[in-house]
Amino acid sequence: MASVKNATDGAPNAQGPVAVDLDIDNITEYVINGFNKNADVRMKFIFERLITHIHDFARETRLTTDEWRTGLDWLQACGQICTKDRKELITVSDIFGLSTLVDEIDHPKPPGATEGSILGPFHSLDAEEKTNGDHISSDADGEPLFVYCTVKDTQGNPISGARVHVWEADSHGEYDIEKADRTRPDGRGILRSNEQGEFYFNAITPTPYPILCDGPVGKFFEIAGRHEYRPAHIHFMFECEGFDKLITALYLRDSKYRDSDAVFGVKRSLVVDIHELDAETAAKYNLSGVNKLLRYDFVLASDSEANALRERHSAAALKALGRDASLPSHVPPTL
Amino acid sequence: MASVKNATDGAPNAQGPVAVDLDIDNITEYVINGFNKNADVRMKFIFERLITHIHDFARETRLTTDEWRTGLDWLQACGQICTKDRKELITVSDIFGLSTLVDEIDHPKPPGATEGSILGPFHSLDAEEKTNGDHISSDADGEPLFVYCTVKDTQGNPISGARVHVWEADSHGEYDIEKADRTRPDGRGILRSNEQGEFYFNAITPTPYPILCDGPVGKFFEIAGRHEYRPAHIHFMFECEGFDKLITALYLRDSKYRDSDAVFGVKRSLVVDIHELDAETAAKYNLSGVNKLLRYDFVLASDSEANALRERHSAAALKALGRDASLPSHVPPTL
Repeated sequence: MASVKNATDGAPNAQGPVAVDLDIDNITEYVINGFNKNADVRMKFIFERLITHIHDFARETRLTTDEWRTGLDWLQACGQICTKDRKELITVSDIFGLSTLVDEIDHPKPPGATEGSILGPFHSLDAEEKTNGDHISSDADGEPLFVYCTVKDTQGNPISGARVHVWEADSHGEYDIEKADRTRPDGRGILRSNEQGEFYFNAITPTPYPILCDGPVGKFFEIAGRHEYRPAHIHFMFECEGFDKLITALYLRDSKYRDSDAVFGVKRSLVVDIHELDAETAAKYNLSGVNKLLRYDFVLASDSEANALRERHSAAALKALGRDASLPSHVPPTL
Repeated sequence: MASVKNATDGAPNAQGPVAVDLDIDNITEYVINGFNKNADVRMKFIFERLITHIHDFARETRLTTDEWRTGLDWLQACGQICTKDRKELITVSDIFGLSTLVDEIDHPKPPGATEGSILGPFHSLDAEEKTNGDHISSDADGEPLFVYCTVKDTQGNPISGARVHVWEADSHGEYDIEKADRTRPDGRGILRSNEQGEFYFNAITPTPYPILCDGPVGKFFEIAGRHEYRPAHIHFMFECEGFDKLITALYLRDSKYRDSDAVFGVKRSLVVDIHELDAETAAKYNLSGVNKLLRYDFVLASDSEANALRERHSAAALKALGRDASLPSHVPPTL
């Protein structure tokens, strides 16, 4: 029988790189080169960094086949539990701190601008338009709370006509869209800031609540020995022509879990006190049956301020990687 | 109305770290510390490296909210298309080169041992036991191929009694388990090496085939401008007491896509020639109607050789990270 050599000389029928002596270290460049025909320079760059980090992760941890399989099975389970209203992968991003980080990256704030916080899974597109002073919650068990806010630019000028989405859980820590018997939006509304940049509404004092933990995320929390609660908060989202979209939330200083939010949304500057409502304010806004006040002054970054920061940060990040800073960093995704 | 400070002083109701001035850089440590109650030191280490790499990826690419959402939606779709027989997340790992890398890490090879290759999604647990010389394929359209192999240890001693799983696609590039009308295993079998470490069987010459591209992976390939084919190959898996499990494959030197395998399984040492069957071999093994021969000598790493390499590599990887090399690196996963 003929003796057969087991090595190839790299015959020229190649598409892409030639079969090599692949090993633990050179495989990363080999895989990245395998995708070098990608015409989308932004996607190619993202893919390169993704592969580099996934491979470094496996190399550094000496990931075992069993661990690899466990991780993939867990990711599969995360996808399988998803529905129109349940987005487990977004919750994964939340509990890994990625949602907060991406908001920080994509919505940079100049000095003085209000910081962002995570959107969370409970924003709803069917919220009703409200007028200043309206009630947003029908929850009779909730402690009435008057919320008075202003919204200004970084120079201190009032912003009028800003569209302000507000939403909160009820006194049992449930959002309207979590309820099977929901007939109309509740605990939410869309306000407009007035000429003085003011907006105000009647709400209830929010309470802490657990994130949805009956699926893969819950299993992870159980094993990781971490609680699944968010501190009491009210969500705010600002949309206004000429200003960068602001998604944020205010967190109650005295709330349980304030310093251990399951999804890493709390920032020091977003922690607020609930005050006793003073008689002057009650009279001015014609309030009755309300004893509590939450007050906050929001500051929006302009589009040009946010864009200037994005460009500066992108250039710095690319330079730190030794890359051409002219690489486009904000091409729309195509996948 | 009372003026309200927007900053907290870090009141002592904390569980875990105190709410901070979270920013793009310090959030990673903050998130990792949020999981510091995890009692499983291995899982804590894996989580720390995972969060570090996910965050670095987002920071380096200045990942946008749209791109983040696109990525999560894609991962969700990967999970949703999975069934008992369809494992899209494993295919994702394959096309990202992660499957090959993890096999390299978890099954290190001493000099002279046969390299590994990816398992792929077509190994089946119901393959029949075969005897040396048996046919493994009933495909009448396939070109008959006699496969003669030996299996030895790194000192050159024959290994007898090794359980050898072999499997291949048919002449149309389809595996038996892909066929809706499958009634019994075909194109696969389990052999035992004899006293001389030999095993041999009648097969068909394999052909290239595409990986399953009707789902999210296919969409990714389309956009990335990469083809979805694997070069012609036969899979082998060796199980033998005292030896590290070897999962590998042999790839035909003349096959299309040999140097651009969609899943990065080809290694130079696993590329083989198909030879004309010589009369002597045909007579010795009582072969008729066969003109082609594939021959390969496999070498298995012993358990102790593999364990010694694992320990050495783990210690080096931990040292490179500045970590205590006594950190357990192979605790079974618990998720």
